[in-house]
Amino acid sequence: MTKQNNTPIFPFTAIVGQEEMKLALELNVIDPKIGGVMIMGDRGTGKSTTIRAIADLLPEIEVIKDDPFNRHPAEENEGKIETEFIKIPMIDLPLGATEDRVCGTIDIEKALTEGVKAFEPGLLAKANRGILYVDEVNLLDDHLVDILLDSAASGWNTVEREGISVRHPAQFVLVGSGNPEEGELRPQLLDRFGMHAEIRTVKDPDLRVKIVEERTLFDLNPHAWVDKYKDQQDCLKQKIIDAQKLLDKIEMPYDFRVKISQVCSELDVDGLRGDIVTNRAAKAYTAFHGGTAVSIKDIEKIIVLCLRHRLRKDPLESIDSGYKVKKLFDEIFDID
Amino acid sequence: MTKQNNTPIFPFTAIVGQEEMKLALELNVIDPKIGGVMIMGDRGTGKSTTIRAIADLLPEIEVIKDDPFNRHPAEENEGKIETEFIKIPMIDLPLGATEDRVCGTIDIEKALTEGVKAFEPGLLAKANRGILYVDEVNLLDDHLVDILLDSAASGWNTVEREGISVRHPAQFVLVGSGNPEEGELRPQLLDRFGMHAEIRTVKDPDLRVKIVEERTLFDLNPHAWVDKYKDQQDCLKQKIIDAQKLLDKIEMPYDFRVKISQVCSELDVDGLRGDIVTNRAAKAYTAFHGGTAVSIKDIEKIIVLCLRHRLRKDPLESIDSGYKVKKLFDEIFDID
Amino acid sequence: MTKQNNTPIFPFTAIVGQEEMKLALELNVIDPKIGGVMIMGDRGTGKSTTIRAIADLLPEIEVIKDDPFNRHPAEENEGKIETEFIKIPMIDLPLGATEDRVCGTIDIEKALTEGVKAFEPGLLAKANRGILYVDEVNLLDDHLVDILLDSAASGWNTVEREGISVRHPAQFVLVGSGNPEEGELRPQLLDRFGMHAEIRTVKDPDLRVKIVEERTLFDLNPHAWVDKYKDQQDCLKQKIIDAQKLLDKIEMPYDFRVKISQVCSELDVDGLRGDIVTNRAAKAYTAFHGGTAVSIKDIEKIIVLCLRHRLRKDPLESIDSGYKVKKLFDEIFDID
Amino acid sequence: MTKQNNTPIFPFTAIVGQEEMKLALELNVIDPKIGGVMIMGDRGTGKSTTIRAIADLLPEIEVIKDDPFNRHPAEENEGKIETEFIKIPMIDLPLGATEDRVCGTIDIEKALTEGVKAFEPGLLAKANRGILYVDEVNLLDDHLVDILLDSAASGWNTVEREGISVRHPAQFVLVGSGNPEEGELRPQLLDRFGMHAEIRTVKDPDLRVKIVEERTLFDLNPHAWVDKYKDQQDCLKQKIIDAQKLLDKIEMPYDFRVKISQVCSELDVDGLRGDIVTNRAAKAYTAFHGGTAVSIKDIEKIIVLCLRHRLRKDPLESIDSGYKVKKLFDEIFDID
Amino acid sequence: MTKQNNTPIFPFTAIVGQEEMKLALELNVIDPKIGGVMIMGDRGTGKSTTIRAIADLLPEIEVIKDDPFNRHPAEENEGKIETEFIKIPMIDLPLGATEDRVCGTIDIEKALTEGVKAFEPGLLAKANRGILYVDEVNLLDDHLVDILLDSAASGWNTVEREGISVRHPAQFVLVGSGNPEEGELRPQLLDRFGMHAEIRTVKDPDLRVKIVEERTLFDLNPHAWVDKYKDQQDCLKQKIIDAQKLLDKIEMPYDFRVKISQVCSELDVDGLRGDIVTNRAAKAYTAFHGGTAVSIKDIEKIIVLCLRHRLRKDPLESIDSGYKVKKLFDEIFDID
Amino acid sequence: MTKQNNTPIFPFTAIVGQEEMKLALELNVIDPKIGGVMIMGDRGTGKSTTIRAIADLLPEIEVIKDDPFNRHPAEENEGKIETEFIKIPMIDLPLGATEDRVCGTIDIEKALTEGVKAFEPGLLAKANRGILYVDEVNLLDDHLVDILLDSAASGWNTVEREGISVRHPAQFVLVGSGNPEEGELRPQLLDRFGMHAEIRTVKDPDLRVKIVEERTLFDLNPHAWVDKYKDQQDCLKQKIIDAQKLLDKIEMPYDFRVKISQVCSELDVDGLRGDIVTNRAAKAYTAFHGGTAVSIKDIEKIIVLCLRHRLRKDPLESIDSGYKVKKLFDEIFDID
Repeated sequence: MTKQNNTPIFPFTAIVGQEEMKLALELNVIDPKIGGVMIMGDRGTGKSTTIRAIADLLPEIEVIKDDPFNRHPAEENEGKIETEFIKIPMIDLPLGATEDRVCGTIDIEKALTEGVKAFEPGLLAKANRGILYVDEVNLLDDHLVDILLDSAASGWNTVEREGISVRHPAQFVLVGSGNPEEGELRPQLLDRFGMHAEIRTVKDPDLRVKIVEERTLFDLNPHAWVDKYKDQQDCLKQKIIDAQKLLDKIEMPYDFRVKISQVCSELDVDGLRGDIVTNRAAKAYTAFHGGTAVSIKDIEKIIVLCLRHRLRKDPLESIDSGYKVKKLFDEIFDID
Repeated sequence: MTKQNNTPIFPFTAIVGQEEMKLALELNVIDPKIGGVMIMGDRGTGKSTTIRAIADLLPEIEVIKDDPFNRHPAEENEGKIETEFIKIPMIDLPLGATEDRVCGTIDIEKALTEGVKAFEPGLLAKANRGILYVDEVNLLDDHLVDILLDSAASGWNTVEREGISVRHPAQFVLVGSGNPEEGELRPQLLDRFGMHAEIRTVKDPDLRVKIVEERTLFDLNPHAWVDKYKDQQDCLKQKIIDAQKLLDKIEMPYDFRVKISQVCSELDVDGLRGDIVTNRAAKAYTAFHGGTAVSIKDIEKIIVLCLRHRLRKDPLESIDSGYKVKKLFDEIFDID
Repeated sequence: MTKQNNTPIFPFTAIVGQEEMKLALELNVIDPKIGGVMIMGDRGTGKSTTIRAIADLLPEIEVIKDDPFNRHPAEENEGKIETEFIKIPMIDLPLGATEDRVCGTIDIEKALTEGVKAFEPGLLAKANRGILYVDEVNLLDDHLVDILLDSAASGWNTVEREGISVRHPAQFVLVGSGNPEEGELRPQLLDRFGMHAEIRTVKDPDLRVKIVEERTLFDLNPHAWVDKYKDQQDCLKQKIIDAQKLLDKIEMPYDFRVKISQVCSELDVDGLRGDIVTNRAAKAYTAFHGGTAVSIKDIEKIIVLCLRHRLRKDPLESIDSGYKVKKLFDEIFDID
Repeated sequence: MTKQNNTPIFPFTAIVGQEEMKLALELNVIDPKIGGVMIMGDRGTGKSTTIRAIADLLPEIEVIKDDPFNRHPAEENEGKIETEFIKIPMIDLPLGATEDRVCGTIDIEKALTEGVKAFEPGLLAKANRGILYVDEVNLLDDHLVDILLDSAASGWNTVEREGISVRHPAQFVLVGSGNPEEGELRPQLLDRFGMHAEIRTVKDPDLRVKIVEERTLFDLNPHAWVDKYKDQQDCLKQKIIDAQKLLDKIEMPYDFRVKISQVCSELDVDGLRGDIVTNRAAKAYTAFHGGTAVSIKDIEKIIVLCLRHRLRKDPLESIDSGYKVKKLFDEIFDID
Repeated sequence: MTKQNNTPIFPFTAIVGQEEMKLALELNVIDPKIGGVMIMGDRGTGKSTTIRAIADLLPEIEVIKDDPFNRHPAEENEGKIETEFIKIPMIDLPLGATEDRVCGTIDIEKALTEGVKAFEPGLLAKANRGILYVDEVNLLDDHLVDILLDSAASGWNTVEREGISVRHPAQFVLVGSGNPEEGELRPQLLDRFGMHAEIRTVKDPDLRVKIVEERTLFDLNPHAWVDKYKDQQDCLKQKIIDAQKLLDKIEMPYDFRVKISQVCSELDVDGLRGDIVTNRAAKAYTAFHGGTAVSIKDIEKIIVLCLRHRLRKDPLESIDSGYKVKKLFDEIFDID
Repeated sequence: MTKQNNTPIFPFTAIVGQEEMKLALELNVIDPKIGGVMIMGDRGTGKSTTIRAIADLLPEIEVIKDDPFNRHPAEENEGKIETEFIKIPMIDLPLGATEDRVCGTIDIEKALTEGVKAFEPGLLAKANRGILYVDEVNLLDDHLVDILLDSAASGWNTVEREGISVRHPAQFVLVGSGNPEEGELRPQLLDRFGMHAEIRTVKDPDLRVKIVEERTLFDLNPHAWVDKYKDQQDCLKQKIIDAQKLLDKIEMPYDFRVKISQVCSELDVDGLRGDIVTNRAAKAYTAFHGGTAVSIKDIEKIIVLCLRHRLRKDPLESIDSGYKVKKLFDEIFDID
């Protein structure tokens, strides 16, 4: 299902935790190797609107004209290639999607009779170099979540049928969202999302009115409304583009890296994904505000988002995971 | 299934809560952006009869002749277009309907061989610019409810199959009904209906006899019966048309809006849909009785209908949700 | 499945409650708008035999020759129509019947290629102007029960497939039967049957022997047995025909109607179907015994049959529903 | 599955209750209107062997040559008919049998193109005028059991598909067997079997050796073994033929009939099938031993077999159903 | 799945209970009427290897050349028949096998058009006159186990479809195996296996090393290893052939037979299969060691194998079934 | 799904137990008859990365050109054969794979019409002479696990359909992995894996940082990174090749073998697979470090990996299986 992608991001910041959600999305856009975001939140908190708005912020990308995989011209080396600039693809994965719909299909018949690889690309092809959004990811079939995560991790989608195999690039920021009342994602899968944001509705009536007003204005005249925020949007857009360029040059002191690993170790985080993502996200954040070396403040800003979902669940414990991460961070980084 | 659409609305007002149900339907017809109505009620309370009667009240609409989507002539810009006036479509969604039946299907075969978009419209196409009625919506497959709500919210239905995509307008008032004894809709979905009416049978024997009599008269000679109420019907019809025109000019004081949000916030309503719908419904109601600015009385009239279904369920609490909304409204709006 | 329809009704009256069952069936035949009968009873109590016997009592009907819908000649107005007289159709709905089997199917292929509405009528077509009998209705799929009740209520069956729609008359007395040990019908559906009879086996040995004897005689020589009861049968047949003619002229005092509604209201009967059916059944009964105005005795005779199944179930209460109806009737109608 | 039908009945009488089982089978053969037998018993007690042996006892029947329904020549009246004598059909219903396999199928294609009723008869056709044996009937699909019992009761099988209907005689003795450890038949179905026998293994070693010996002899040389018992078999065969002829002339005093109904009534047996079957079985038994009027002894012999399975189950009661029947019989018939 | 059938039987005798398993298999090969063996045992105890090895021991059989049922030339009487000698068939029934795969299928199309019985034989055809091995029989569909046991018992497989019926010999020794940790076979089926062996791993390290060594040698050079045991194998092969010839002449004193039945009766064994199998197995064992009359020792050797699985399970009892059989045997046969 | 196979093995050794995992994989590569490895471990511990890296270490193999089974030229003896050298195949078995996909399929149609064996090879064909990797093997269908283990054990895959049978070599090292939180493999299957490694995340922050650094370097420039470790890789590669050649000459003292069996026996290990695998693995390890005779140290190194998963689970016991194996080993081999 395609939807209108013209809602700016700002008016919805009054939702508690939405700053975090925005940040997680922005950092993933700056460094897609962070590995996606999982957003848990109350219904009606504008999750999908925000994600769509973020997508609108992104700079256009150059692609081979009419390429089903949105490939960069450099990825094709046959003759002269015509190119075009398109908006970053933002693909919605519908709940009932089949594996064929997601991965694409091979038409064996055609392949055999006409001798060509008759590949019908799926949603993963469309999502290449963009964002793949899965609402209610906890209701998705585990097998499909697996495919999405594998593809997001490796950057490739391979389809194989009866000995014919097709492989195409499928590098995207995977964004999942879910409602905590509808059941958890199993830990195995949750762990593979880079970051994890939680949002809930703001309580302050004045703030609520402000959002309702913006929404009403927007509904009345979307175009005018978008124009009003154009400068703010353009500024953010530029900040992201700059950060993408800065990213490789950001330094991170060895001492900080050890301390991050110490936090992960003491939190009993399985594997090293937690360590890696925290490093990456801290750097992306430093680049985002135009710094050159990661500071403790930078790490503080993102560490909860990176680790909160990696703690083993203790059914008897009532302390919030995020709080535990923050507390240990303060201890190890000597913050008081 | 098509049914006879000639029952006027008045004789059935003796049902407790039917005024509320009627009001919710009327307001949605005046401002379809309110987002539909969910009607919960005892069996045998004439839910579907009332909805059909409301549909009969609505002014005819101008459509492109034979257009499968009932589009307004302004939506098509090729050459000269023949138009016609039709009754507002009132579509029944049968319980066992498949996704194909609801959304329509694409004939890939034809599309490929004849090079045309061979789209077979579904019920959503038929419901465009009308009312879509789903009886026993709590028994419907969640996935289908999702599609209905998405379409109702966005005003568009998009069908995509094997790379071919068709998109058509699908703007309608979604009306669901259900019996509380047959299980709840999950909160995620319930929250997306704009308003929520509850009805139950009247107790007064004389009133009951009156209704039975009307019903008997109607069964004996439907046409004569309809004629009898014609003036009343025509008057209501005109009131709705006038309100539709007035709607954009209705004012709502800032103070009221804050108080509405305060009610939502203190009721712990997730997201801002509650705030938005209450604002809209209050304005529609003001327009309905010919006012120019929303009064506290106007809000009082509709706030329960807009918020009742957005409260978190506390399984241990026995207080009626509607009562809680009303009580908080009285407090915050200083009514005693 | 067709079965032999030649069993007279009398010999089986020794079953407790069978008079009630017979009465309910007879009244429905006199006024099909009563809305059918649900019969609950022990196994082996001759439910289906009685229903078949009642069907045999009914006067033949004039139909358009070979019409798949048994339509009356007046329903067709093309040229000269050949007619014939047939027995009232008595259709058995088999347990495993599909929706296609029940409603009929449209041959889309044929419709498109030959340009004609290729409708293959189903059981509802066959049942038009007759009786549709569903044994073990509580084991039937809810969706199918819904279709049956909708069709019985509206008198029409509409089949729609891929934009082609066929609609034909389907007016019938719906008779369901079930065994209380095999699970209840859900209240939503139960409420839509006009009347509800309960039967159980007689205890008196002499009566049992008498029935066994009749049965044995019947088994030995069905034809002779049928002849023996011919006069009795013919007399009843005439009584039904006369009642059908009288029905529209029966009067019902306003006071009685209020009291009926009072009974319904105090019994907390949802909706007004209870009131309507009681009125209808009382009039039909008055017509059946040749009266002109409904008396209290007439109402007394049928009120339990009309309301017993409309009471809310209180799982902790052990009082029989029928008894509660009767007691309240006595109170309100000042009977002692 | 066809099996060898040449095992005589005698050698297996050492099983406790096998006399009862044999009797129930013999009486059903004498009067098929008794309505079948349900045999519950330990595994390895030779249920199916005995049933097959009983089938071998039956006199051959005259049928229309190659008739798929084994019809008697009198049932066909077109021209001159060739006939033949065949053994009474004994049909095994395999566990996984489909409805098509049981009832037969109509080849619509052929029916439409060639204009003939293309009916492919099923097992019910083969079983006409014979015995239909269903092992482990409690594992059979309820729907199929229903079909079997309906057909056994009415003597006809009707198959209907897409408006084409075929009806053929299907009169047979239905014999079911089951193992009590594998779950009960639901009472609704159990009640429709005329009689109910229970068997279990004999304990006496010498008797066991005798049976084992017979079995060993039989396995070594089936033909010789069969010859040895030929006279005994022939004598029993004659007794059955004589009883079939006598049956219609057997008298049953009115007083006995009342007492039988009294037993049924006090046992709270639903419906009158219990009364009818007891009367029939008593007469068949009287005919079997060559009597002319039913005596108390005759009733005593069969009443437990006829009523045992018709008592309501009281989960808290541990008294055997058969014992309760016998005790009440003794009381009412003044036996001490 | 076919596997290499060249593993001799001896080296694996160090498994506790393997002698029993071997004995049960050998006796079944000597007298296939014993009715198969069920082998329960720990994983990794070489169940399937042993069964395969036993199959290798058996003398070759003469069959009609290319006959799909391995029939003996005497079973065909048309003209001159070419014959060949083949190894006794040893068929593996794979876990997921369908009924068609097991029983064979009839090609109705071909049958009708070409007028020939187009039967595609299944595994039962291949197993005729051989061994059918079902690993993890407790995981097999009950329906399929039923078919196997019926066929094993009757010696025939009959396939019937749409009135065409094919019947072919299917006489085989049914060998099932299972792991006690994976759930029991239901008693109904368990009882139909003639014998029941239990095995578990040997504890003695030196013995284990010896087996491991043999296995290693075998893996290194299977052919050399087989040669080494050739004499031993040939000797056993001859012993089996001799026993098959002797079998019919073995005597069993009446007194012993009564005592066997007494054991069965006191053990509360259902039916007489236990008695019959014990008699048969005792005789086969006597023949195996070249005796002429069954001795108490012979019975002692086999009675546990024949009865252990026929005892009713008492969930509260912890005594091993085999021990109970042995104890009662000792008592009744006066052994101390 | 194919993935990039260029990650060297070293940088990930900081995971606790990864040395064990690596060792188990290496020994299986040296002696594929060990029977595969099952790896249980926390998520994010690089299981699949390590396995892929091991595969990269292996020497290339010579195969018949374009052979679907990667057969060695010696396995084909028709005419002159063209050969090529390929990397050892490393096949991923996707979670949802069907039996057809795994085993291959026979095209019966083609086989019959064209008279050739039309076999479409599956994953087992591709895995011949390589490694088959099954992630989350505990989520795989038992039936499929059975097929994999059977094929791994026998070295052959046989596909049979409708009498046509195809058999091809399928000798591979089966590597399974799973997460202990997602449920156990059933013991029956677990036991058939030769070895069993357990891994979990390292706790030491400095080590974690080191790994994260390597990972980051690798992500930045995989090719450069691989080059850095090239020597180390080449050295290991050579060590494996040498060990493969040495293997057959390794000696193992009788005394050690008895003691190994004693350990197995006292641990109550079912069957002899434990003994055999321990012997094989000890020899492979000796060959790996270039020894000629197995020492106690060699056995100590591998015995836990070979036996840990073969102990019966005692749900009440909390002692680690590996610890029990080690303790008994110390006792029996007199280590202190």
